[in-house]
Amino acid sequence: MVQGLDQQAIAIYAPVQEGLAQVEDKLLALRDTTIPELEPLLNHVLSHGGKRVRPALTLLTANFFPLDSENPVNMATGVELLHLATLIHDDTVDDADLRRGNSSVSSRWGKQVAVLFGDYLFAASATLVCDTGNLRVVRRFAENIMELASGEIIEYFSAFNPRQEMTRYYDRIYRKTASLFCTAAETGAVLSGADEEQVQALRSYGYNIGMAFQVVDDLLDLQGQEGELGKPVGNDLLQGVLTLPTILLLERYPVDNPIPALFREPEQDGNLQRTLEMINNSTIIADCFTIVRDYCDQATQSLQTLPKCASRDSLETLAGYVRERNH
Amino acid sequence: MVQGLDQQAIAIYAPVQEGLAQVEDKLLALRDTTIPELEPLLNHVLSHGGKRVRPALTLLTANFFPLDSENPVNMATGVELLHLATLIHDDTVDDADLRRGNSSVSSRWGKQVAVLFGDYLFAASATLVCDTGNLRVVRRFAENIMELASGEIIEYFSAFNPRQEMTRYYDRIYRKTASLFCTAAETGAVLSGADEEQVQALRSYGYNIGMAFQVVDDLLDLQGQEGELGKPVGNDLLQGVLTLPTILLLERYPVDNPIPALFREPEQDGNLQRTLEMINNSTIIADCFTIVRDYCDQATQSLQTLPKCASRDSLETLAGYVRERNH
Repeated sequence: MVQGLDQQAIAIYAPVQEGLAQVEDKLLALRDTTIPELEPLLNHVLSHGGKRVRPALTLLTANFFPLDSENPVNMATGVELLHLATLIHDDTVDDADLRRGNSSVSSRWGKQVAVLFGDYLFAASATLVCDTGNLRVVRRFAENIMELASGEIIEYFSAFNPRQEMTRYYDRIYRKTASLFCTAAETGAVLSGADEEQVQALRSYGYNIGMAFQVVDDLLDLQGQEGELGKPVGNDLLQGVLTLPTILLLERYPVDNPIPALFREPEQDGNLQRTLEMINNSTIIADCFTIVRDYCDQATQSLQTLPKCASRDSLETLAGYVRERNH
Repeated sequence: MVQGLDQQAIAIYAPVQEGLAQVEDKLLALRDTTIPELEPLLNHVLSHGGKRVRPALTLLTANFFPLDSENPVNMATGVELLHLATLIHDDTVDDADLRRGNSSVSSRWGKQVAVLFGDYLFAASATLVCDTGNLRVVRRFAENIMELASGEIIEYFSAFNPRQEMTRYYDRIYRKTASLFCTAAETGAVLSGADEEQVQALRSYGYNIGMAFQVVDDLLDLQGQEGELGKPVGNDLLQGVLTLPTILLLERYPVDNPIPALFREPEQDGNLQRTLEMINNSTIIADCFTIVRDYCDQATQSLQTLPKCASRDSLETLAGYVRERNH
C-alpha cells in the first residue's frame, strides 16, 4: 500500500489501486539481489515509500483503454524507479543530507556510492521499461533521462545569476519536472493501445500537471515554517536558484531589488528576509497561483476529447488537487 | 579517422574502416545541441578520440553476415558513448584529475556537473541503441549498465580489504570491463542477423578478450615508469584495489605479506616497494601472462565455428595483439 496519502489522493488512485499495489511489489522485489553490497542500498531506497504520483499517472492513462497486460505496471514501476534514481543524483549534486525525513544515500554512504548506485537504478529502471516490449516507450524514456539531466545542468550553470528570462525558466522546469509527468502519461496511453490523438491529449495532460506541480513546489519553498518540508524557507534562493515568484520580483522591481545582492553574498542576513517581504507585499504569490490554475485548467481541458470513465474522473480530480494544493 | 593507433591496430580495423569513420562522425554530430551549457562539455568529451576498440568489435562481429543497414554503426556509437559516460563517472568517483592526458570532466567542471553530464551521456548512448530498432540489444545494453555500475560498487566496497577470493575478482572484472566487450561483440552479431549459436560464439569472444584486456591493464599498473600511463606505478594498490597479481601474492605469501600493512597505512613508504619487489622476484607476472594467453586462446577458439572472412582474421589478430600487449 502506498504510504502517507490523504483521503483525496486515495480517492484519485482508486481506479488503479490494484496496479499500484503491483508497482509496490515490483519495487520491493528489486531488493532481491545476488550482490550483497547492494542490499542495504536497495533496502534504503525502496522501502521508504513515496506518494507514487508518477506511476499512478501511467496506470490511470493506461486505464482508458485497458488491455489485459502487465506492460503498464512495468512502465509505471520504471517511471517511479527513474524518479528515485534522479533524487539520488540530485541529492548528491545538491549536498542534501535528508530525503523524505531519512538520510540521503550520499550523506549515508558517501557521494561515490551515490553516483554509482544512481547509475545502477537508472539502468534498472530502463530494464523494466524494456519489459514492456515497446520500443517507442523505451526511446521516450531514454530521451526523458537526457531532459532530466540537462535540466539539472542548466539549473547548475544558471545558479546565482539574477538575469534569467522567463522562457528559460519554463524550459528548465519542463526538463527537470514536467518531462517525467509527460512520459508517465504518454507511455500509459501508448501501452494501452490508445490512438495517436488520445496519446497526445494525455501527454498534454501530463505536461500541464507537471508544470503546475513544479510551480506549486516553487511557491511552497517560499511559504510555511522552516522544518515543514525539511528545508529552510527560501531554500531555492539560498541555493542560487530563481523560480517563478523570484523571477517575477526581478522583472517587476528591476531597481533596488535585494536578489542580486543576495546572490552576491548569500551568507549575509537581511536580503532573503527583504525578498520574502517584497514578494508577500505584492500580488506575485496570487499571480503564480493564477498560472498554476491555468496549467491545471489546460490539463483538464486536454481530457475533453477522451471517453468519460473512472480514470478521467481521477485525472480531473488530480488536476483540482494540484490546483488547490496548499492554497 | 581514429587517432593514435599503431600499424597493427590499423590492420585490425581495416575491414570496418568505413563504419568506424561513421561512428566518429556520429560522435562528433552529438556536439550539436540546442543547450548552450552542454556545448563545451560535449566538445571536451567527443573531440579527444580514443582507441575505439569497443565499437570496432561491434562492427567486426556485424561484418560476418553484413546486412545493408545503419544499425551496427548506431550500436557501435552507443557502445563507445556508454564507455565515455562510464569514464566520466569513474573519474568523478576516483577523484582523477586526468583522462587521456586531458583534464577530466570532474576536475575541470566540478563533480556536480560530471555526475549530471555522465547521466546525460548514458541516456544519449541509450537513444543511439534505440535507433537500431532492436529491443534485444536495448535490453542487453541496459543490463550492461547495471553490471558496470555494480562492478564499480563492488570495487568501492572491497577497497583496502586484503582478503578477497579469486572468484570475486573475476566477477568484478567481468562487470567493470569484460561485460561491455561482451555486449559490443554480441550486439553486432545480433544486428547482422547471425543465428543464436554464432551470437554466443561471438559473445564468448568478447568475454574472453575483455577479461584478457583487464588482466593486462592490471599488469601494466605494476610496470613501466611513472608517467607513462599518467598514473604512479602500483596505483591500484594505492587506491586499495586488489588485482590478479596482488591477489596471487596474497595467496602465495600469506605470512609476512606487505599488502595488509600497505592497506592499513597507504601513506607509509616501503610497503608498496616491497610488494612490487616480491611480485617481480616471483613467477606471478609470468603466471598472469599465462592467464592472459589462455583467455586470448579461448577467444580465438570461439571463432572456429564461424565462417572464415576478413572480420574473423581481424578478430584473430586482435586476440594476438592483446596476448602480446606490452609483453
